[in-house]
Amino acid sequence: MKKANKKLNAAIIVIGNEILSGRTQDINVVTISNWLNNLGVKLDEVRIIPDVESIIVKTVTEVRRKFKYVFTTGGIGPTHDDITAKSISKAFRVKYCFHPKAYKILESYYEKGKFNLGRKKMAKMPEKSSLILNPSSAAPGFYIKNVYCLPGVPSILKSMLGGLNNKIIGGNKILNKTLRLRTVESEISIPLEKVQKKFKNLEIGSYPFFKQGKIGVSIVVRSTKKKLIDKCLKLIINFVKKKKIKIL
Amino acid sequence: MKKANKKLNAAIIVIGNEILSGRTQDINVVTISNWLNNLGVKLDEVRIIPDVESIIVKTVTEVRRKFKYVFTTGGIGPTHDDITAKSISKAFRVKYCFHPKAYKILESYYEKGKFNLGRKKMAKMPEKSSLILNPSSAAPGFYIKNVYCLPGVPSILKSMLGGLNNKIIGGNKILNKTLRLRTVESEISIPLEKVQKKFKNLEIGSYPFFKQGKIGVSIVVRSTKKKLIDKCLKLIINFVKKKKIKIL
Repeated sequence: MKKANKKLNAAIIVIGNEILSGRTQDINVVTISNWLNNLGVKLDEVRIIPDVESIIVKTVTEVRRKFKYVFTTGGIGPTHDDITAKSISKAFRVKYCFHPKAYKILESYYEKGKFNLGRKKMAKMPEKSSLILNPSSAAPGFYIKNVYCLPGVPSILKSMLGGLNNKIIGGNKILNKTLRLRTVESEISIPLEKVQKKFKNLEIGSYPFFKQGKIGVSIVVRSTKKKLIDKCLKLIINFVKKKKIKIL
Repeated sequence: MKKANKKLNAAIIVIGNEILSGRTQDINVVTISNWLNNLGVKLDEVRIIPDVESIIVKTVTEVRRKFKYVFTTGGIGPTHDDITAKSISKAFRVKYCFHPKAYKILESYYEKGKFNLGRKKMAKMPEKSSLILNPSSAAPGFYIKNVYCLPGVPSILKSMLGGLNNKIIGGNKILNKTLRLRTVESEISIPLEKVQKKFKNLEIGSYPFFKQGKIGVSIVVRSTKKKLIDKCLKLIINFVKKKKIKIL
């Protein structure tokens, strides 16, 4: 790692033509982000890139220097478009070869005679990677330095995150509270900005919503400090009441 | 623009803490991507970044040099966390000021006395921007050179894309066909790779799925040439039949 003082932050690199083409709706970013919130790690950037080796190599090399943790999703299956493991090997300039433990896991998972070339490919990864075990379909993910490679299938990815909990050194849980108001953003923008200016280590977000034909605004307050959130919400509720806005 | 020979490609920059925090599921990428497919423009990268001016400036400056079209989503509303227009002004080193036409649109949209400071903010954008009209809630988006700024609310964004159709110079529609098979990826990976090697201007993707307790694989073939897609699918169907795999 080049920088010593990285914050407790993370980036996700979604590797997949199917996401860029609009065919598939990514839902892994939300899953990983919420998991990271609980570990006290802030997701600071996401990139969605195609299944192209040179782009994967370049992106991983750039992003892993900027963020403490990098998660990739997708491209670790058995088909020709699964090139994540090979590309990560290139990014780290290490051999792309069979991982002995991954090989054994897969060999014993498949019936005799069914451990074919495609399946064997899933045991190939950057030399000296560590495995991320897969409780749902055997084929493991892997990590090397600060880059953690997960599959693209949401249910499998989800089942693998638990195994990573003790590998990620996080901080205080990132907490949030939401206040739902029957108003429009432009009615509250000025007093809300004033409140935000009073708090440095706290993030106030304002998001309009439409539900059952009615409009409203969700105010989301985020911080690692519960007391700060409560203090901030109190100030918001004060001006909301003065303006006679309904709290939902 | 620095590079002359840009391909007909695009990038999306999703600006929003609410997406990174896992609170909100982005669905705009799929919408924009499918709209671009029809215009014959390929979405080549997506970045999701926080509501931080320096990061927006840096990302826009980098990305707009790499891709023919750049779309941003989010951050053009009236609240303190809506900083896209101001940041884009900085990225282009132009003034951030009232757009006369946008001001008029908003002024006449709101009842007399209701055109407050927050609402006025939505008429501020980079000097000499062009407007992207908003048929659903008046507040317009804008574009400057190759950067098109859209709102984050999915229904409003969707309603604004139509107005951009004749601004985007695209190419041939990007077509795709899907073949759904009752198999697993590792059973077909070798012959599928052989087929892919025969086609240069065509993309074959392989995606496992789980539906109603049954597993399968979707093979997606993408190209601007229908004939090429049909030819490729024929070769795939050939080996699929030989392997006695069920086509769904």
